Amino acid sequence: MPVLQVFWAEDGGLPANDRGLAYGDGLFETILMVGAQGTLVRLHLDRLIRDAGRLGIPVSRAEVQDVYARAASHYGSSRADTPWVLKLILTRGAGGRGYRPDPDMSPNLLVSASPAPPATPVEGVRVGYSRIPLTVNPVLAGIKSLNRLEQVMAARELSEDVFEVLQSGVSGDVVEGTRTNLLLQTTEGWVTPPRASLAVAGVMRDWVLERLAARGEFVTERPVLPEHLTGSSCRAFYLMNSVLGVVPVRNIAGRDLPVDGGLATICDPLETLE
Amino acid sequence: MPVLQVFWAEDGGLPANDRGLAYGDGLFETILMVGAQGTLVRLHLDRLIRDAGRLGIPVSRAEVQDVYARAASHYGSSRADTPWVLKLILTRGAGGRGYRPDPDMSPNLLVSASPAPPATPVEGVRVGYSRIPLTVNPVLAGIKSLNRLEQVMAARELSEDVFEVLQSGVSGDVVEGTRTNLLLQTTEGWVTPPRASLAVAGVMRDWVLERLAARGEFVTERPVLPEHLTGSSCRAFYLMNSVLGVVPVRNIAGRDLPVDGGLATICDPLETLE
Repeated sequence: MPVLQVFWAEDGGLPANDRGLAYGDGLFETILMVGAQGTLVRLHLDRLIRDAGRLGIPVSRAEVQDVYARAASHYGSSRADTPWVLKLILTRGAGGRGYRPDPDMSPNLLVSASPAPPATPVEGVRVGYSRIPLTVNPVLAGIKSLNRLEQVMAARELSEDVFEVLQSGVSGDVVEGTRTNLLLQTTEGWVTPPRASLAVAGVMRDWVLERLAARGEFVTERPVLPEHLTGSSCRAFYLMNSVLGVVPVRNIAGRDLPVDGGLATICDPLETLE
Repeated sequence: MPVLQVFWAEDGGLPANDRGLAYGDGLFETILMVGAQGTLVRLHLDRLIRDAGRLGIPVSRAEVQDVYARAASHYGSSRADTPWVLKLILTRGAGGRGYRPDPDMSPNLLVSASPAPPATPVEGVRVGYSRIPLTVNPVLAGIKSLNRLEQVMAARELSEDVFEVLQSGVSGDVVEGTRTNLLLQTTEGWVTPPRASLAVAGVMRDWVLERLAARGEFVTERPVLPEHLTGSSCRAFYLMNSVLGVVPVRNIAGRDLPVDGGLATICDPLETLE
């Protein structure tokens, strides 16, 4: 198997002909860290390996685990009590004949650290609807790949007042935020958009579903329509990702929602520090 | 307006936090050159500027024209009679808050040169159908962006025997090859998939349509189905891009097609050297 090449961002970027830049031919993970300890680490590394397999990028769990441990120690020692974010960008490597990859190329892994974003307000956030639809290729559904232009274009609609915008599929169902998955608490129970419909299947979403299941609370995967969010059956609406945690939504496109911050307490990724 | 930052591939890659790598937040052009002269240059640079505008990347025609001229001279002087390919990668720049770009960031332009691919056989090529569907976001349709994972995944199906694979939309219409646009000559005239359905709207396609129009031959834009390619009304089927030119297809998924190489002669991009 080709050997993973590791690059540290402070030493420069990837080679000029890397396929991550050329075609978005790769994956990334952003892991919330405190000192040398990380949150949801198993889920992040599992997803990276699983999605690398889906794209046909040859990399082993042991290689990635080793880089993670070195990065946690390298960056974490100077950030003892500070939350920060470890970013891993895995690409198929450099070169190839146009789009067609060379099956023997060595994958590249670019490692970097950045400050954690500010904490989100516990009283909830305001969100809107994006004008940019989501078109999810079934072959790539859920993969946190480097092809994120749909999210970038939608994120241009964010402002100081709008924490997140929700993107809909071509059939009008609300699929996810630019950087968050969705979970709805209704009078009939928990609802979240189906995994197969997602642009990015977040590890925080996986973990929250696991936690709820462990409490005996079942989550139904079905399409979410705008009227489900603002209808009388909605008890609470949450956004989530592994860096921000669980964020209650208090207003959507000018309409107030009932706010219940309880889930943010039940599912705090900082509890998983290891 | 922010000033374009120019990088030459032989001096290294883009900064580690460039958004082209992080999100595929950018565009590219590949221009067929001979010596210091380029083909279809106006169309390439027009598209780059037009699509930069669609993505909200601030760059001027004069800036890009200047870099093109420097690159043609820089790489072309040592490649006097040899065809080569000039690649321009334009990204939104480095940094930003996650997906959300900073509107003041300076775009980056990475310039590189590589040998031209081998000439395609005049007797035509064999093609197949890809198992990877195309899902084209209407906001991004036709843009030669750095989000090309659908094409990479399909290109993994190419082999010595299969020159190109054709990708279909979700409704089953044949939209384009991994790196080529399609043009069909039928007993009722010329047909090509509608521009709004395309992942990449090739400059070679634009130029061929212009050339045919100048000869009084009209091309109908309508969805192309597999049965149109192998039905009795098909007189010739062509693939095209600006580096390979026009390529007749002689066999599709094991079925022979009538071959007419005439269009390749009428539309030779080398005639446009300037």
